[in-house]
Amino acid sequence: MNMLVEGEWRRDAYESTNEDGEFDRQETSFRDWLDGGVAAAGEDPKSTEFPAEGGRYHLYICRACPWAHRAAMVRQIRGLEDQITVSLVQPERYDEGWEFSDAHSDPLGDREFLREVYTDADPDFTGRVTVPVLWDTQENTIVNNESSEIMRMLDTAFDGNGVSLYPEDLREEIDRIVDAIYDPINNGVYRAGFAGNQDAYENAVDDLFDALDHWEGVLSEQRYLAGDGERLTLADVAMFATLVRFDHVYHTHFKCNRRAIHEYPNLWGYTKDLYQTPGIAETVNVDHITRHYYGSHADINPTRIVAVGPDIDFTEPHSRDEFRGEAPLVE
Amino acid sequence: MNMLVEGEWRRDAYESTNEDGEFDRQETSFRDWLDGGVAAAGEDPKSTEFPAEGGRYHLYICRACPWAHRAAMVRQIRGLEDQITVSLVQPERYDEGWEFSDAHSDPLGDREFLREVYTDADPDFTGRVTVPVLWDTQENTIVNNESSEIMRMLDTAFDGNGVSLYPEDLREEIDRIVDAIYDPINNGVYRAGFAGNQDAYENAVDDLFDALDHWEGVLSEQRYLAGDGERLTLADVAMFATLVRFDHVYHTHFKCNRRAIHEYPNLWGYTKDLYQTPGIAETVNVDHITRHYYGSHADINPTRIVAVGPDIDFTEPHSRDEFRGEAPLVE
Repeated sequence: MNMLVEGEWRRDAYESTNEDGEFDRQETSFRDWLDGGVAAAGEDPKSTEFPAEGGRYHLYICRACPWAHRAAMVRQIRGLEDQITVSLVQPERYDEGWEFSDAHSDPLGDREFLREVYTDADPDFTGRVTVPVLWDTQENTIVNNESSEIMRMLDTAFDGNGVSLYPEDLREEIDRIVDAIYDPINNGVYRAGFAGNQDAYENAVDDLFDALDHWEGVLSEQRYLAGDGERLTLADVAMFATLVRFDHVYHTHFKCNRRAIHEYPNLWGYTKDLYQTPGIAETVNVDHITRHYYGSHADINPTRIVAVGPDIDFTEPHSRDEFRGEAPLVE
Repeated sequence: MNMLVEGEWRRDAYESTNEDGEFDRQETSFRDWLDGGVAAAGEDPKSTEFPAEGGRYHLYICRACPWAHRAAMVRQIRGLEDQITVSLVQPERYDEGWEFSDAHSDPLGDREFLREVYTDADPDFTGRVTVPVLWDTQENTIVNNESSEIMRMLDTAFDGNGVSLYPEDLREEIDRIVDAIYDPINNGVYRAGFAGNQDAYENAVDDLFDALDHWEGVLSEQRYLAGDGERLTLADVAMFATLVRFDHVYHTHFKCNRRAIHEYPNLWGYTKDLYQTPGIAETVNVDHITRHYYGSHADINPTRIVAVGPDIDFTEPHSRDEFRGEAPLVE
């Protein structure tokens, strides 16, 4: 039993706007750190009472969610499948928030809703219930639910297969890019889709396409985003999570329809390149992505009809290997 | 004063679906004919009590509406501007139906709503209030409000500049094409956008893109749709009215997002070719088109936010003049 009243789980918790009609993403709540995890520069891990032990932690994610996708990609690319278990919630999110279902049940209990994971960690919890959730099966609590922190932890606290997505010499640059693309791109599509008025929407769309144009230019000269562009990093993980969803959902459902990603030669080649990087394809589920967005936001799609989406193929050839740099070899 | 209760003008009158969730367009109500107007084969003009006199008839249209667009294009291409006057209604349509405004007032009276034109013609009228309306300023009544009939009348009842869009030797072929593209394309986008459930939507989208693929093939071999493809006809007028709206509204707002028209080489070249045909550009108003669709259908776009639309340019070069055939020379 949790102590929350039904109304607190309504969609408004996910789609709130400020008085100017701008989408206002609420902060995540659990910000503890795994021992040995490296935070972004200038941010100190809040505690290190959680040792990075294989088999101890569990990730709750949704294949639809771009924030959860960051964690899922790092886990997969770094070969942490055996050390960190993962489970999915139901893609559609209704008034009760993220939920488990027969197809996507809770492997750690008989919970019905993800909010019970939150209230099991903190009985007084009343904030937003989001994915990803990094759960400690030993202490039965949430370590962290902030994707930008979880992706850094999973890269640095565990050894994995030796692939490093947050290498020391590029950390400052990666931090800068992850930060630079958040507002206009990763969160920018939400600012467009959940805008409360025309001005807020148009500002978001302008920011978004200015930023996409900028990175299209960067990617016309190098394979990956950070540094000399020769290494796949967390910056690419963060960018890919938005790009791979763009043409199916952000373009139409969030009205980001100035241009599709498959109409940008370099961003589209880059998206296919990342999709074809060992470990990544299995983290992408277009069916869950489209069902979630079209099916969950009745405020902007009251019929909940799922758009067919474009005829694009992430497995088609790309010519990104013309640039220096190589996709990491995942065992 | 009209005798209609407010509820009868609600949006449902425009977006009704049948019990299978399929969009069910209601029939138009006024079906009289101008004297000398040629109807489609097998259809007899209902009456010929309206002589085709210059200066007698008025067209009420909305620049947003593809059906009204047919009439506006024929009037313009055939040089009937001096013989048939035209006026616009306000692009946004709310619960009271099409309305006049300060910017788009009624030149024939001080009417506030287009429904008053209908009730002036028939005090008992309770049906759908649509554009185009062909109004007789002498008898003060509506001659016809069915676009497929008005476009044929305007081509055949008046002499105009001599351009014929419904030439006798091609009439059967034009009838066949206008009929063939109605359900999957012209009305198909509405069947997708106003579908009441996923199946009805997917059926509409499949029909639509099958038909677009078919005509893409036809247009890879000839300049225009009918016959030997050398002459612009009413078949092209009917097709263009949907194509020119497609990427800005049908693709995103009606979820017809499998492919954009600017991604079909031949349909896109054909759309630009028609846009650049003398007389046509002045009948196209993208601002009215986007404001109408995004602003009027709260059932599918509750925020009424108008999507920015793609960066496409109807005035860019096309290479359609590689085919035999020439655009009509409009004086």
